[in-house]
Amino acid sequence: MTFYVLTIFPELITFYLKESIVKRAIQRGLIDVKVINIRDYTVDKHHCTDDYPYGGGAGMVMKVEPLYYAYRDVISDGGKRRSILLTPQGNTFNQKKAEEFASLKTDLLLICGRYEGVDERVKCIVDEELSVGDFILTGGEPAALIVIDSVTRLIHGVLGDERSNIDESFSTGILDYPHYTRPAEFMGMKAPDVLLSGNHFEINRWRRKSALKKTILSRPDLINKKTISIEDNKILKELKEEMGDEFVKRFRGEL
Amino acid sequence: MTFYVLTIFPELITFYLKESIVKRAIQRGLIDVKVINIRDYTVDKHHCTDDYPYGGGAGMVMKVEPLYYAYRDVISDGGKRRSILLTPQGNTFNQKKAEEFASLKTDLLLICGRYEGVDERVKCIVDEELSVGDFILTGGEPAALIVIDSVTRLIHGVLGDERSNIDESFSTGILDYPHYTRPAEFMGMKAPDVLLSGNHFEINRWRRKSALKKTILSRPDLINKKTISIEDNKILKELKEEMGDEFVKRFRGEL
Repeated sequence: MTFYVLTIFPELITFYLKESIVKRAIQRGLIDVKVINIRDYTVDKHHCTDDYPYGGGAGMVMKVEPLYYAYRDVISDGGKRRSILLTPQGNTFNQKKAEEFASLKTDLLLICGRYEGVDERVKCIVDEELSVGDFILTGGEPAALIVIDSVTRLIHGVLGDERSNIDESFSTGILDYPHYTRPAEFMGMKAPDVLLSGNHFEINRWRRKSALKKTILSRPDLINKKTISIEDNKILKELKEEMGDEFVKRFRGEL
Repeated sequence: MTFYVLTIFPELITFYLKESIVKRAIQRGLIDVKVINIRDYTVDKHHCTDDYPYGGGAGMVMKVEPLYYAYRDVISDGGKRRSILLTPQGNTFNQKKAEEFASLKTDLLLICGRYEGVDERVKCIVDEELSVGDFILTGGEPAALIVIDSVTRLIHGVLGDERSNIDESFSTGILDYPHYTRPAEFMGMKAPDVLLSGNHFEINRWRRKSALKKTILSRPDLINKKTISIEDNKILKELKEEMGDEFVKRFRGEL
């Protein structure tokens, strides 16, 4: 899979390709990232990528022409690309969407918005608008990094141990269980005995129960019928007894 | 405000400080970003920051000791810092949280998790766990960039035109209206006449109506009593007539 990134700050993307998992995936030929400078496609002598908004108001608007010509250049070889505009106005990007992209047979084209917004007519080259969250960024570049990182690690062969993806938060529908590693005791804080017991049935049950409890405390919205097994229901009954009023209040959003 | 970032990939943060709005804010002395390499605080000769999980399973766990010693060093001058662990297990970061941070009198300490997870005992140095979204990243670094960027642009004096923050998505409770800039026509697509009319009452009404319509189509969950004025209610009635069945179905989540 190739990620094409349209940006006016190529450096903000290329730096990220020099480290960690994305770097290794590129070196091993599992993915490729091509960064395209939108400024190379401006049509005026000052290389403007933005202009004042029609109708007035603060801030600048990203012009449609350079984006359009950059896009046309990327698709000129006839290859299939899914074109995504990163914008706070988009649908919310999540793990399910990352999995969908990782299984695509087409390349991804990520368009990083900037300034106050992007000229609405850019929609003619956009298949999908995505937002990584309900916050305002100066530009779409950190959002593009999030899409590249989260999709790359789902591509077969990228993670050394494929199981690393299975236990993670959201992949199982709820939050991840707590992790502990050496030392067994640090500053008077001990790792739970059960994890050192070697009893894998008990370890798994402790982990699932801890994960469910954490999810109830932080993100009760993630708990629904789809993610809950018969065994989970038994654990939830235990947690309800142990947590008392708090259990109900968390689900009602009262805490 | 100073952002302290604890990471094992300092480069992933420092590159971002060389561009755009964060760079300008640093140059003007409005913010500072200090990047701390967790590896400098390892206690073994191999400088390990991770180890195998107690209880078994895939992946590696970030050790508590280097994080603890790095944290202790940062707070050794007695300054107040709010310590945030970036993790998918956290509460969801949003614009409201960014505004809260921007108004803090304390510095922010951002801890970037890595590997399968972070030793649970690191919670002893954490005030708050935050997630930027329901997806899995290889590390917390892109999340830290998102916090730094979104908070920085809210700090007084950072944006040239303070109004730029007011019209944005989420700041008004709903999505932003569509933007247009020159040319008035591109590839047969015209900017709406109303925006070129000079009638600011009509322009504002068109923008609010377009913003409400966009929000109904993409994010009906954002529309609630708090964000809706009496004038908005009139516009919603118009949209209900114009959109017909779709209006109701979007709110019910059927589309």
